Amino acid sequence: MKNSTISVTAYDWVPAPAQGLVRDFRLRWALNEAGFPYEVEIVPLGTQREPANLARQPFGQVPTLTVDGTPVFESGACVWRIAEESDTLLPDDQADRDRCLSWLFGALNTIEPPLLAIMHFVKPARDSDGERSEAAQPGAEQVDRCIGRFVDALGDRDHIVGDRFTVADLMLTAVLLIADRMDLLSDHPKAKAYFDRHSSRPAFRKAQADQMATFAENAAKYEGTA
Amino acid sequence: MKNSTISVTAYDWVPAPAQGLVRDFRLRWALNEAGFPYEVEIVPLGTQREPANLARQPFGQVPTLTVDGTPVFESGACVWRIAEESDTLLPDDQADRDRCLSWLFGALNTIEPPLLAIMHFVKPARDSDGERSEAAQPGAEQVDRCIGRFVDALGDRDHIVGDRFTVADLMLTAVLLIADRMDLLSDHPKAKAYFDRHSSRPAFRKAQADQMATFAENAAKYEGTA
Repeated sequence: MKNSTISVTAYDWVPAPAQGLVRDFRLRWALNEAGFPYEVEIVPLGTQREPANLARQPFGQVPTLTVDGTPVFESGACVWRIAEESDTLLPDDQADRDRCLSWLFGALNTIEPPLLAIMHFVKPARDSDGERSEAAQPGAEQVDRCIGRFVDALGDRDHIVGDRFTVADLMLTAVLLIADRMDLLSDHPKAKAYFDRHSSRPAFRKAQADQMATFAENAAKYEGTA
Repeated sequence: MKNSTISVTAYDWVPAPAQGLVRDFRLRWALNEAGFPYEVEIVPLGTQREPANLARQPFGQVPTLTVDGTPVFESGACVWRIAEESDTLLPDDQADRDRCLSWLFGALNTIEPPLLAIMHFVKPARDSDGERSEAAQPGAEQVDRCIGRFVDALGDRDHIVGDRFTVADLMLTAVLLIADRMDLLSDHPKAKAYFDRHSSRPAFRKAQADQMATFAENAAKYEGTA
């Protein structure tokens, strides 16, 4: 993949609450860690469900990873695809590789769903006084349980698989980023320390900065949009 | 993997609404399709968060797939791991393999989350008259949108990748099973036909029957439990 032509789709702008969270961030971070150069293909906000984008991303979203002309969609699939070709992100040892695969799905399918439920589907997520609403409690409790079990599994180690950074740490950190934005990490100091450790990596920071730079460039175009 | 020692953890019993949906079903189906013999290791309901199970499944759930002593957890990870070693479930062609990976994650990370949100986190999911509540509407609308886009991508084909059954059809069908149980497929005749086609496969039926047989055997033990 190092010598492949790689591109990632990304929006030109999104409203402030989504900035930094749009999923192309995860691909950018993985590609930066792996040292694979890539180009960004901008999808202007509002055009994501037009035929050109639906042809590569059937749900009408970003990101799509295109490697030598072949598209991969869903951030989990894209990040795994990058990791498979990167010694940096995925160990050779089969048992460690299996652990990475398990934690990648653990981040996306056990920790992230209750976060998304609170963010998108629980109405109201907060009461008029800004406190988390009664409706949001089942989701928040599930988030607390999942993060608690992740912290137990981590123990006193810096990394969830073996003794170095892998794709598992990348996706766990990317999902904990959502929890951090929702102020759901402050009750979990070990998870917060893990998040702070990995989100201070240069490849993370560059991925965030690159996504944000595009939004800043295009902000004027969307002025007055919610 | 055909010559490996494979086991799958499963509960001895769960309440009726979860029967047939517990995620070991997905592994059983994949193993049946691949033709890989496996044993079932029962986790008595209520013991899933004891140390023996947490050691192999850090969130204290089922299933865990154990291959020659090495555990893999999360149904997505387990099913992908099985598919990687199965010509039946995963094509050799890299582009088709990438499509399978994308749709596996699409099923689990785009279609399933709003289903789980309605099922677990939206209170109340139904009003006193049994109709879907206002609170459940955002999730149900998202389900409709995702299924609609899946149907568009499917077109008039029987399979989502290439012209034969793959791991992508398996996971899409396993997720549509949840929608079917919630009566969210009836408005999508093409998705319902796709679901009916793949859920009539012998390997699907055997996986369902095997999970249900264990529940039937142990029902008396849990009599009076909700």
